[in-house]
Amino acid sequence: MANIPASHQDLVQNPNALILATTMPDGTPQTTVLWFRWTGDTLQISTTAERQKTENIQSNPRVSAMIVDPNNMYRYLEVRGTVDITHNGHDDAYNLIDWLAKQYTGKNQYYGGVAPAENKYNETRVILNIKPEHVVARG
Amino acid sequence: MANIPASHQDLVQNPNALILATTMPDGTPQTTVLWFRWTGDTLQISTTAERQKTENIQSNPRVSAMIVDPNNMYRYLEVRGTVDITHNGHDDAYNLIDWLAKQYTGKNQYYGGVAPAENKYNETRVILNIKPEHVVARG
Repeated sequence: MANIPASHQDLVQNPNALILATTMPDGTPQTTVLWFRWTGDTLQISTTAERQKTENIQSNPRVSAMIVDPNNMYRYLEVRGTVDITHNGHDDAYNLIDWLAKQYTGKNQYYGGVAPAENKYNETRVILNIKPEHVVARG
Repeated sequence: MANIPASHQDLVQNPNALILATTMPDGTPQTTVLWFRWTGDTLQISTTAERQKTENIQSNPRVSAMIVDPNNMYRYLEVRGTVDITHNGHDDAYNLIDWLAKQYTGKNQYYGGVAPAENKYNETRVILNIKPEHVVARG
């Protein structure tokens, strides 16, 4: 386990963009921009089982997460780790996406309060849990 | 070759942060924040032969480059491609870093006008050239 230094805690406490790098089946890195929650020892990302990044992680669970200070591109945090995908019933995954929606958009519920099982997207929501194994803090 | 759509050309025309994902020898993605130049068909990055990312690219030249709109995290461009590392004498590599320094910092010369061969960093500057093979434009 690696720690996030006090100097860069603000980057994980605030609703910043997280760029997640995974690996495609052919070995090419893939990057996407995501919401995240920092629990104190884990980065959590809400996504669905059907997405390319989830498929990538099932083949190669090692990832890099990058958070750049939105006001200073020279100040950033890279967290590398191995993803543990959890799906403890719908409740955990939907509680997380609702919490994230509130943080990033101010709205209370990502799916507008529609019961998860009946949401129009017909998605299987999962949580990507990343415990920092290697941390690079710059700036 | 893939094209960058007109809707997202501004992201490569302006001095934005580029997040480059490479692959460590053990298969873990690595991400760093970099300056870049867009030539019209190639993303160019200036770095040194000694950096981890350059070593990674020598083993696996496939990368993903992410540029996020600094004013809107939901608007971004991912460019995947294969890196061609060039080092045509010092001149090209030093011309590029000086051009980048001007764009990003307003200073004319990255090494303060010290002749490349005698710069205090004693680095071997190279250019990473990425022609887009797959482009994802969002937002």
